[in-house]
Amino acid sequence: MKSLVIVAHGSRRQASNDEVRELSSRIESLTGESFDQVKTAFLELAEPSIPGGIEQCIEKGAKEIIVLPYFLSAGRHVTEDIPGEVDMVRNKYPEVSIKITPYLGTIDKIADLMVEQANQAS
Amino acid sequence: MKSLVIVAHGSRRQASNDEVRELSSRIESLTGESFDQVKTAFLELAEPSIPGGIEQCIEKGAKEIIVLPYFLSAGRHVTEDIPGEVDMVRNKYPEVSIKITPYLGTIDKIADLMVEQANQAS
Repeated sequence: MKSLVIVAHGSRRQASNDEVRELSSRIESLTGESFDQVKTAFLELAEPSIPGGIEQCIEKGAKEIIVLPYFLSAGRHVTEDIPGEVDMVRNKYPEVSIKITPYLGTIDKIADLMVEQANQAS
Repeated sequence: MKSLVIVAHGSRRQASNDEVRELSSRIESLTGESFDQVKTAFLELAEPSIPGGIEQCIEKGAKEIIVLPYFLSAGRHVTEDIPGEVDMVRNKYPEVSIKITPYLGTIDKIADLMVEQANQAS
């Protein structure tokens, strides 16, 4: 069983957290058979935490987990904090494979979407 | 003459600011004839500022400017700060058309890119 966890920063503004949850639902509807479930987790200020979200997947039977950081740049959160939180779960569940993908901002095709967005506005 | 200004938050970490500048260069190479120039501007912590970046475009002859907020959620920065900074320039150059597009996080197709990213990692 395979799970995808979208990790966002988390915000005091509840609507921002809900935006990410809605995105995860949309992603879940798009993954087809490649993932059994898609969860949202937050680095801070919202629930579940990263270890909490990953553990929810494991409790549902996930043996393979992909963590996708919903971040635009490689600051400390992406380079240190997220890997650190993921390691906490790895140490507790060594039998589960947990991989972190490059963060959202590394995806080249975002540039194409931004060009479309700009063209639509002009 | 038409310009596109990519507005990012700005970071103390220079590499993060450079990441956005590189993205803007990539976008410039993709816009073809729809934009004469693509600039980067920052809300804080990096240069140029939003008014500064927009004014650079105007000085080069831009009569129409599209501002695209490189942000993932609709926090205060997107809803208040960016429009406020843009209004400062609008008031100074009423003959120039300046439009703000919806922020990056509103682009639906980002979900598709995230599914691809997750599938590649698994």
